[in-house]
Amino acid sequence: MQFYNMPSTREIFLNKNENPFDAPPALKEEIRKSLSSLRLNRYPDPDAKALKAALSEYTGFPAEHIVVGNGGDEILFLLFAALIREGDRVLTLSPCFSEYNHLCKLFRAEQVKVPIVVNGKRFSFSEEAVLDVLREASPRLVLLDSPHNPTGMLLRPDFLLKVIEHSPGICLIDEAYAEFSRTSILESIKGDLPREVAVLRTMSKAWGLAGMRVGYAMCGKHVAQVLNETRSPFNVNVMSQDIAKLMLSYREWVEGRVYAISYIRDRFVEEVNRIPGWQAFESTSNFVAVRAPLQRQQLEEFLLQQGIHVKFISVPWEGTWMRVTVGKENETQLLISAFSDLTQQAEGFPSSRVTV
Amino acid sequence: MQFYNMPSTREIFLNKNENPFDAPPALKEEIRKSLSSLRLNRYPDPDAKALKAALSEYTGFPAEHIVVGNGGDEILFLLFAALIREGDRVLTLSPCFSEYNHLCKLFRAEQVKVPIVVNGKRFSFSEEAVLDVLREASPRLVLLDSPHNPTGMLLRPDFLLKVIEHSPGICLIDEAYAEFSRTSILESIKGDLPREVAVLRTMSKAWGLAGMRVGYAMCGKHVAQVLNETRSPFNVNVMSQDIAKLMLSYREWVEGRVYAISYIRDRFVEEVNRIPGWQAFESTSNFVAVRAPLQRQQLEEFLLQQGIHVKFISVPWEGTWMRVTVGKENETQLLISAFSDLTQQAEGFPSSRVTV
Repeated sequence: MQFYNMPSTREIFLNKNENPFDAPPALKEEIRKSLSSLRLNRYPDPDAKALKAALSEYTGFPAEHIVVGNGGDEILFLLFAALIREGDRVLTLSPCFSEYNHLCKLFRAEQVKVPIVVNGKRFSFSEEAVLDVLREASPRLVLLDSPHNPTGMLLRPDFLLKVIEHSPGICLIDEAYAEFSRTSILESIKGDLPREVAVLRTMSKAWGLAGMRVGYAMCGKHVAQVLNETRSPFNVNVMSQDIAKLMLSYREWVEGRVYAISYIRDRFVEEVNRIPGWQAFESTSNFVAVRAPLQRQQLEEFLLQQGIHVKFISVPWEGTWMRVTVGKENETQLLISAFSDLTQQAEGFPSSRVTV
Repeated sequence: MQFYNMPSTREIFLNKNENPFDAPPALKEEIRKSLSSLRLNRYPDPDAKALKAALSEYTGFPAEHIVVGNGGDEILFLLFAALIREGDRVLTLSPCFSEYNHLCKLFRAEQVKVPIVVNGKRFSFSEEAVLDVLREASPRLVLLDSPHNPTGMLLRPDFLLKVIEHSPGICLIDEAYAEFSRTSILESIKGDLPREVAVLRTMSKAWGLAGMRVGYAMCGKHVAQVLNETRSPFNVNVMSQDIAKLMLSYREWVEGRVYAISYIRDRFVEEVNRIPGWQAFESTSNFVAVRAPLQRQQLEEFLLQQGIHVKFISVPWEGTWMRVTVGKENETQLLISAFSDLTQQAEGFPSSRVTV
């Protein structure tokens, strides 16, 4: 028996780290009702008071230091716009969330990258190298995501605390996927968040509201001030504020979905690792880094023929790499079948194999 | 008999140039229906194809050169982020839309302002002075709004064409209120829009969707490219795209509202001008510049006691100035009564009068 066995479209989207489950029908019914009293002709509440109160209740973080954005993307954009002048240094890992690269380029920052390497069954990077960059390159902005995209690894809280302590500028810990790892740096910080630190979250992943574009930052005092001075007062529209606030009362629904995704993810990793030549990495998030023993073009074409979309990633590691979003159980199973089928086909055509 | 005689709240908001009429109930019903098929868990269409097609049908402008933003504000923000480095010059009139001042400060631009003066019953500025700035100061960005905020005057199309012709950088004509003036610079431009020009519009004013934050720019090729490279692919959420698209089929409804607002506006101007010492200026938009023969503090307190919000503006002209959004008929009539009452009271206390 399969609970979640109907893909909603003929195409399968495992490329954007979305939650495969649409919002609960009860939420949509609540939205329908609340539409009567929402006045679409009036600008939204510039302080997003009701939404921030719900976020504060959920996170335990004081509402007055929460800043809400048009997706987490907007909060990153605002930080760059406010802080980064041409040539300023920004510290990231490499690879990292593609938006970090895009923003560094757009604002002509010098991106200082600490490389992640593949160590057998896991990823790692030199924590010392990060701390060296803090000391020697004095980055204006530090962007570290945990769980890390696209590897799915968790950064050690002790290490993040050291980064926060030694960072000479603003330090943003991106916890877009924190609900999946069920850990947050906030649990390790004693007392208030330091002035120059922010923890970024989103309603787009575990909360399943990618379409509504609601991100939020829990901020130290200075970061909150910078973001509020920079953003448009009306950056989050009335429907996004309303729907996100309503959604936050479906916490048990989200927990159930997170368990489902975690279960499907771990089975997916196991099964991919059983296919000869393939490697899937353990993940603390809703996506999995996968190394394929095939050429990218061949693999990409084959998957697209089957209507399956994954994200191929350009990384400095040997082989063909992709980031697979964990979908509904039958979606990941179709993907696993595709991997197996193509691998068997390829064994008949050894020239297309890549040795990794 | 009054058609529009129920303010929707006990407070009267005439301070944000919103449309006083909420969206038609039929639209809300359409939104309720469309919610079933909207997938809130998926990211929005990065190309906003359906919305752009509807905007193209409405404006007659090719969809592929329309860029949609999270309100017109976002499009302005993106232009500054992409183009303006510290010390770059930006040409505006003075006074102007407060967001232009805010963005110049935020991005450390040198704002070159051409002053508007009060000439009896109208506003004016030196068109020659604007053209001189183009020649001599070589602004990276020109921001001119027509109808102009907060004066309500229309800029001459012939003049705007000259500005476009002589502008050395990007030239943005802000037509946020064009539906009220029923003119657009696009009618005067023969052939394609020049590469470095954009015309900004919004769904927040005549279209009555301030709460949904949908602005759009009809762009010359280069501006479209700059905006698309700079914006987040998911800058306009699924509900905003959907609601704006649905709303664009209510064109007759909007026309009716525009006529209503124009009618109420012109009566408001006439009636204010009958109160001794007061001056209201003819407007081509949904707001009116008003000069009061009273001190600002006294007037502001009196209006707030009555629950009426208008926007007081800081201008280099003599007297106390405000920008009044045209509301429903009974709302503007309450405001006129307040003006009269306070003026009569003030005549008993001559010390509070200001000679203008």
